[in-house]
Amino acid sequence: MYLGDEAWPDLETYFDRESLALIPVGSTEQHGPHLPEGTDHLIAEGLAREAAERTGYLCTPTITVGVSPHHRQFHGTMWVDPPEFRAYMESLVRNLTSHGLDRFIFVNAHGGNVQHLREVGRRLHGDETAYAIEWMWDESIPELVEELFSVPGPHGGPKETAMIMHLAGELVHEDRLREARDGGLVDWGRESGRQFGARTFYDAIDNTENGVLGDQTDATPEKGEQLFEAATEQLCHLCDWIAEKEYSDLMPRTHISGRASGE
Amino acid sequence: MYLGDEAWPDLETYFDRESLALIPVGSTEQHGPHLPEGTDHLIAEGLAREAAERTGYLCTPTITVGVSPHHRQFHGTMWVDPPEFRAYMESLVRNLTSHGLDRFIFVNAHGGNVQHLREVGRRLHGDETAYAIEWMWDESIPELVEELFSVPGPHGGPKETAMIMHLAGELVHEDRLREARDGGLVDWGRESGRQFGARTFYDAIDNTENGVLGDQTDATPEKGEQLFEAATEQLCHLCDWIAEKEYSDLMPRTHISGRASGE
Amino acid sequence: MYLGDEAWPDLETYFDRESLALIPVGSTEQHGPHLPEGTDHLIAEGLAREAAERTGYLCTPTITVGVSPHHRQFHGTMWVDPPEFRAYMESLVRNLTSHGLDRFIFVNAHGGNVQHLREVGRRLHGDETAYAIEWMWDESIPELVEELFSVPGPHGGPKETAMIMHLAGELVHEDRLREARDGGLVDWGRESGRQFGARTFYDAIDNTENGVLGDQTDATPEKGEQLFEAATEQLCHLCDWIAEKEYSDLMPRTHISGRASGE
Amino acid sequence: MYLGDEAWPDLETYFDRESLALIPVGSTEQHGPHLPEGTDHLIAEGLAREAAERTGYLCTPTITVGVSPHHRQFHGTMWVDPPEFRAYMESLVRNLTSHGLDRFIFVNAHGGNVQHLREVGRRLHGDETAYAIEWMWDESIPELVEELFSVPGPHGGPKETAMIMHLAGELVHEDRLREARDGGLVDWGRESGRQFGARTFYDAIDNTENGVLGDQTDATPEKGEQLFEAATEQLCHLCDWIAEKEYSDLMPRTHISGRASGE
Amino acid sequence: MYLGDEAWPDLETYFDRESLALIPVGSTEQHGPHLPEGTDHLIAEGLAREAAERTGYLCTPTITVGVSPHHRQFHGTMWVDPPEFRAYMESLVRNLTSHGLDRFIFVNAHGGNVQHLREVGRRLHGDETAYAIEWMWDESIPELVEELFSVPGPHGGPKETAMIMHLAGELVHEDRLREARDGGLVDWGRESGRQFGARTFYDAIDNTENGVLGDQTDATPEKGEQLFEAATEQLCHLCDWIAEKEYSDLMPRTHISGRASGE
Amino acid sequence: MYLGDEAWPDLETYFDRESLALIPVGSTEQHGPHLPEGTDHLIAEGLAREAAERTGYLCTPTITVGVSPHHRQFHGTMWVDPPEFRAYMESLVRNLTSHGLDRFIFVNAHGGNVQHLREVGRRLHGDETAYAIEWMWDESIPELVEELFSVPGPHGGPKETAMIMHLAGELVHEDRLREARDGGLVDWGRESGRQFGARTFYDAIDNTENGVLGDQTDATPEKGEQLFEAATEQLCHLCDWIAEKEYSDLMPRTHISGRASGE
Repeated sequence: MYLGDEAWPDLETYFDRESLALIPVGSTEQHGPHLPEGTDHLIAEGLAREAAERTGYLCTPTITVGVSPHHRQFHGTMWVDPPEFRAYMESLVRNLTSHGLDRFIFVNAHGGNVQHLREVGRRLHGDETAYAIEWMWDESIPELVEELFSVPGPHGGPKETAMIMHLAGELVHEDRLREARDGGLVDWGRESGRQFGARTFYDAIDNTENGVLGDQTDATPEKGEQLFEAATEQLCHLCDWIAEKEYSDLMPRTHISGRASGE
Repeated sequence: MYLGDEAWPDLETYFDRESLALIPVGSTEQHGPHLPEGTDHLIAEGLAREAAERTGYLCTPTITVGVSPHHRQFHGTMWVDPPEFRAYMESLVRNLTSHGLDRFIFVNAHGGNVQHLREVGRRLHGDETAYAIEWMWDESIPELVEELFSVPGPHGGPKETAMIMHLAGELVHEDRLREARDGGLVDWGRESGRQFGARTFYDAIDNTENGVLGDQTDATPEKGEQLFEAATEQLCHLCDWIAEKEYSDLMPRTHISGRASGE
Repeated sequence: MYLGDEAWPDLETYFDRESLALIPVGSTEQHGPHLPEGTDHLIAEGLAREAAERTGYLCTPTITVGVSPHHRQFHGTMWVDPPEFRAYMESLVRNLTSHGLDRFIFVNAHGGNVQHLREVGRRLHGDETAYAIEWMWDESIPELVEELFSVPGPHGGPKETAMIMHLAGELVHEDRLREARDGGLVDWGRESGRQFGARTFYDAIDNTENGVLGDQTDATPEKGEQLFEAATEQLCHLCDWIAEKEYSDLMPRTHISGRASGE
Repeated sequence: MYLGDEAWPDLETYFDRESLALIPVGSTEQHGPHLPEGTDHLIAEGLAREAAERTGYLCTPTITVGVSPHHRQFHGTMWVDPPEFRAYMESLVRNLTSHGLDRFIFVNAHGGNVQHLREVGRRLHGDETAYAIEWMWDESIPELVEELFSVPGPHGGPKETAMIMHLAGELVHEDRLREARDGGLVDWGRESGRQFGARTFYDAIDNTENGVLGDQTDATPEKGEQLFEAATEQLCHLCDWIAEKEYSDLMPRTHISGRASGE
Repeated sequence: MYLGDEAWPDLETYFDRESLALIPVGSTEQHGPHLPEGTDHLIAEGLAREAAERTGYLCTPTITVGVSPHHRQFHGTMWVDPPEFRAYMESLVRNLTSHGLDRFIFVNAHGGNVQHLREVGRRLHGDETAYAIEWMWDESIPELVEELFSVPGPHGGPKETAMIMHLAGELVHEDRLREARDGGLVDWGRESGRQFGARTFYDAIDNTENGVLGDQTDATPEKGEQLFEAATEQLCHLCDWIAEKEYSDLMPRTHISGRASGE
Repeated sequence: MYLGDEAWPDLETYFDRESLALIPVGSTEQHGPHLPEGTDHLIAEGLAREAAERTGYLCTPTITVGVSPHHRQFHGTMWVDPPEFRAYMESLVRNLTSHGLDRFIFVNAHGGNVQHLREVGRRLHGDETAYAIEWMWDESIPELVEELFSVPGPHGGPKETAMIMHLAGELVHEDRLREARDGGLVDWGRESGRQFGARTFYDAIDNTENGVLGDQTDATPEKGEQLFEAATEQLCHLCDWIAEKEYSDLMPRTHISGRASGE
């Protein structure tokens, strides 16, 4: 069920019955010479809408701009600074609880959002406003990702390329896949971007001239479909897992210490 | 040109040549029993994308959730509180200036956003970061609105109904137009919601039981198309008007006072 | 009853009996070559004190500096930026509730404060701290204003000139009324300051060289007295209207949705 | 010269010639059974206006509500919390610098404001926006205060009583002076309100049942006049002292360290 | 008992029995040519740890960096700006209450922290989160300080020198005591740093070239030991005084006014 | 060189020659039944002080309380919430740059601080204030950690146990190592704490009853010494690597787009 398409009276039965919402969160940022800047929010939206469709849970409109300052040297990258992003998301979720919702999944497709969505979730959890967790699509299917690609690439690689081939093929510049690979950094390992254990870079451009990592030529629409199907399935399971929980089991355990417990 | 669909190298020539961007801003909130909650962001997106298409100026993805606390008693209304909304928008625009953009139009379709977008715009103007102004679609064509409808309604009325009939007809519950009119408040005048000159209400529900104002049965897709065409035309003119200005003419006039001028 | 003049024990019976306070809010900003910079706070204070005198409700000291950045190019204009203004006003009202006050009227005479006072009022209403509304004096008597002046002018026009003639005549430079009119902008219409529907200016100086609008020569002390009497009367009515309300009727209606209602 | 009474063109020569402004800051808070709640802002305003009159420097309208949470248990005490108070004052001063002002005296009559005004002044000094200092009237004439009163009282005592007798005698309940003394705390010494060196109270009511300290019966209008004259004289000297300084001498000394100096 | 050294299960009995914690707060800032920059936090830590040892109350790790912008022109001075310092301390204390603690002593050795710790304490007291007070070591033994030194000096003087001689003698440059005295300002009186009653300086360097005040040659380790013993004793008494109080007696008195009391 | 022990004149030559400082950052939080709550800050301090000693670079006092809300159900855990922690650290570093420092290493021993220190570092980098990076000791020696322990444990495991055995052996409850292991969670794998790809827990207690992970019986002081030596060596290398860089090479690459570049 997609909130943006519904008239308000038609939501009443949902709120009577369920208290879960999916919130797609992406970014609008460079994804190399071959992919559209909307890549991440297209993926997040695609997965969240599909899972909502299959399960009947509620999906909200997509947050299209996230935390992407590390891509700022590339034309067109949009971003909101972390404090403002967190505040916007937190306010949005707090206000949604006025309808009786008390559990949320941030369906996320941008690595740069992860820590901020978790920080927001922790705050909401800490004061027992709601249970909100972040779900990053590719972390739900690590085996499949490893199976399909030798070098999946954390940004703009074959993994994301395949997904967009499947979801919005017309936006992929297929004639630039080789150029994407050759102009970027193919291998990104444990030591990449580090010196003596410290992450020493802040901007993507310090690691890759064209903004991307991995071997893009390894992507196909079929692989994209496989990824999409597998991740959607994981997301559907997660929805059910959360929806079925007792709310109190999702909230923090009480901390009992002497005096406090006596109150 | 739609930023979300472009790969970053393809934006370079735009940033070489132009410094204007359109940012669609809407809301996700109740629009009565007959219209989808996404009404406002659908309208903002529709107009901004169309104007960008016709003029060649850049359009960013849509901000789908705005300032709508006054609709909170209706199921599904989403909102972000004013300080967080302003901060998010301001950060988003400031960061966009890193690509050389220095003038922005908030293509807006939600009355509740107006003052906040203007406040953001004033701040950006005040410190000479950028020239950003708010454009509310129906304020650009007051005569046409008055001509087409006897009671256009400031929220969920025939004006917005006609627009959605044109833009996303399948989302309109045409069988509920009469119900929308009869369950809401048709006439909204200068004295409505006021006592002795003061606006005394904070929530829409204090004025209208089903959330809408005006006579929805007066809407047709044809009128919607007329509105859309006329407003798009105004927006295109506004784009050109801004793009052609000298940047210094858009910035604040200097204030010369004695000592200060001597520095 | 004026709070600033009372010793604390003498307020006890008021707080036992009533829970309303009037808070005059103005600005200190240019009002053309003929009017003092204190014009707005003089008007707000005059009306609030008079209404308090007549009705017996409590009036606090005046907030003399408001949100006036749009007049910054004119010597002497003082202002506080919007976030700081709102925060100050909100803190002031929240703290006043510690004495049992739970309803407030911002007696306002400066257009630039309106949206900010409403935002503060909405926040206090939203968390059920208090019912605080903004009352702008000239919005309470639109017919009289229209009757008395052909071009009342939204800023520094004959309307405000007449009021200061009545309240503090010695501060009006009567010999400059013609100059005020001729050096400013007389007619301010729906299209003024707009392009294709968008408000394109941020500073008053972009519209008027001497800072004022309207025909100041149309002002007389007698008209000022009429305005003052009529507006005071409206304000007194508003005080009674609010004071007589049940507090619960001033608070937000509950939003009942399924799960939430079950709690 | 009083800013609130001037029309903007009449301020131009001042700003051409001078860059100093006096800003009266007080409070609205309980001052015992005998004094009005406006005591502090009446004193601040009285002194600032008089010094401005005598010297020709500019005086702004008065900030009537300050930081007085420690008096909250007494009816009518108004206050703004410290962060909001500082932010309001800082914004007000920063914006005043747009007219060429670069030095400010906070003419203060409320002890609770001192540290906050100094914090604001330090911030403005630190980033070289302006030189703003706090002047507390009674700290300028300690010998006279000690000479006139055996127990001057830090709050609501004979010192403040005498001042209000002089400035607004009709607001003093002279028939309650004895009651004020007997119902409060007469002697306030180094150990008062302390335990083992720590200040252990946060609220005035913990020290005095009626809110005041000192022996109020010792006050006379004549003593008030003496205080007023003496303090005004000090303030006039301070104005000249500041106005005559080179701006650079009022700004922070440079900190030269190796690398930094090489830049 | 020192929290940093304990394993969590060993704290359970403390939290069962007691609700007091000591939090040492100092600074890292210049203390003249003869004392280490850590002087203040060494003193705070020394006293708090010793008092905790003797009484059995809990002591937390030390906050080593405080509010010291006034020493910024001297190499190595570290500081955190006031809003950030207050926010850090407030968050730290609020979170400690989750273990049942409800009363805290900030064992402080830096004058620049005083007002900020009190502001934090007031906020925690105001919303009844906890009772937290600031204790400045030398304010607990004014007679002894006056007895031991003719010019104790508020910063880097013989008082602090003696304390460090006692606590960390190896860090004192005893061969520079004379230089410290001669290069600084020996006498610091009521008029120092003031003009016509106003404190006119913001930076220590405006008063003393080498950063210190007083006669350092007057310091000995024996005097340091006397100070340490006497102050520790005061602190121990304060701990007992607070620990023995009823919590309700430490909280604000209720303010009863008419309507509010009727609720 | 340890800043806290130095007198200010003795720092001048350092600031003339170098612009790097090490800032130890830890936490005070539960580390199981066998380790002290100060574990993380003891490790951070130990490594930073040692590396500073060996290399001659400057080390500041330790930040002892970090971001540890996830351990709040265990007695004694201290923490500061993320916004306040970041603000405190950012202010501290910004102010240190006044001495000419422009590069910083956060010597960190607490996983919960990582993202926050990076966010602070990014902000400082973004506005070109300084180059500040986070270094987590165990990430610098992953091979050694894997070699020494079969299950190193991310929190309170043998890795940290061995370090404290080496640095402060008397604080380790060696008789509880077995209990630590058996009462906690030994194996922490990729799937731990996750459901369908999402991290579903916010509190450590949801994963481990006694707060720790890994097999503590595998720790020895000798292994601790090996870890300490190896990590110190890495840190020394990192210091040199940063100190030798041109400052401009550490700052963000310029983003050249058309118009912007023309300015």
